[in-house]
Amino acid sequence: MAEKSWDRPAGVAEPTSERLSLVLRALRTLEGQGVHTVSSYQLAERFGMNPAQIRKDLAQFGEFGVRGVGYHVADLKLKLKQLMGLERTRVVVIAGAGNLGQALADSRNFNVEGFKVGALFDVDGRKVGGRSRTGVPILELSTLAQNVATLKAEIGVIAVPAEAALAVARLLAGAGVPAILNFAPASVPPLEGTFVRNVDLTFFLENLSFQLAVRKR
Amino acid sequence: MAEKSWDRPAGVAEPTSERLSLVLRALRTLEGQGVHTVSSYQLAERFGMNPAQIRKDLAQFGEFGVRGVGYHVADLKLKLKQLMGLERTRVVVIAGAGNLGQALADSRNFNVEGFKVGALFDVDGRKVGGRSRTGVPILELSTLAQNVATLKAEIGVIAVPAEAALAVARLLAGAGVPAILNFAPASVPPLEGTFVRNVDLTFFLENLSFQLAVRKR
Repeated sequence: MAEKSWDRPAGVAEPTSERLSLVLRALRTLEGQGVHTVSSYQLAERFGMNPAQIRKDLAQFGEFGVRGVGYHVADLKLKLKQLMGLERTRVVVIAGAGNLGQALADSRNFNVEGFKVGALFDVDGRKVGGRSRTGVPILELSTLAQNVATLKAEIGVIAVPAEAALAVARLLAGAGVPAILNFAPASVPPLEGTFVRNVDLTFFLENLSFQLAVRKR
Repeated sequence: MAEKSWDRPAGVAEPTSERLSLVLRALRTLEGQGVHTVSSYQLAERFGMNPAQIRKDLAQFGEFGVRGVGYHVADLKLKLKQLMGLERTRVVVIAGAGNLGQALADSRNFNVEGFKVGALFDVDGRKVGGRSRTGVPILELSTLAQNVATLKAEIGVIAVPAEAALAVARLLAGAGVPAILNFAPASVPPLEGTFVRNVDLTFFLENLSFQLAVRKR
């Protein structure tokens, strides 16, 4: 289904996933506006997408549209949520209660339909026992495994210094967390049984620099 | 050069940029190890990349390799840095000195070769006049335009609440900042003369959920 990639773990191609996330948001907006059916052209026009790409992305996963009608908004929304595993709430735990960990714990981006931040973990005794601004409890890192089990956490976010990233990734994987999102400035290799996505913020800056350099030519 | 995209501003395709960033890092590592020449196969094998993709990415921008030899490490590194506009240091300013803004200002990812965080901006009088942990000054948001000029800032990072994102983006664009990286949980539309890259952290969570859902099928 996804293109073969040397850089990324097997699974759903990230651009496909990102476009389907955008479609899902568009459907939520349309539903809120009382719209019942929508064509791929209307979706494209109203939300700045490519109609052929929408059809292609959806076609990978089944039959969603009705010929001559387009998509039933509520129906497609439900099917997309099921496809993407968003029909229930997944618990996220965040290792590292520094500025980044707390920013993520309190972010509207991490507290959306489908996700709930269950806990932050840290080794700093001055932080442990406290809460983030929005009330996420900060727990001792050594209790991670037991809390992952209690919370049934499925996503672990790494927001610790580079030096600690790999050890924390192994701790999360060992606790049975099936997916890891790593924001530490150190790449974590694939771990047995756990999907690891490294997010390197430097890439965003380098991409902007590249855009500026190309524009000047 | 980049594929036509309905979702992204014109310019260099982000996956290409990300792969070239990875090649550049690999070259830095090789140079540090005293390696003078490398083939695309060796690059691929040592750094987990796809050799054909490396050649294809580079071929878009010119002739880099020498037949039968591969690439001269120092030479390719220099050319890539020039291509990506990384041969000099670009100043980054960050709007919003909350947890996220300060995390970014102090992050190793934002303080790498090619970039320097010049200032944070905020409206909170308790923060203004202070510094981040690593010493980045926190300035009053109303002084952004004059400081952008003084610092010759080329990249503006938005780390303010969603409600303020668009106003801050316009402030940055109005001050002549040519590239914006928006981390606020609200999408900023393209602005005249300024390249805007919205980073939606929810996409990362939704992608992980998608991977987990697909894996279970």
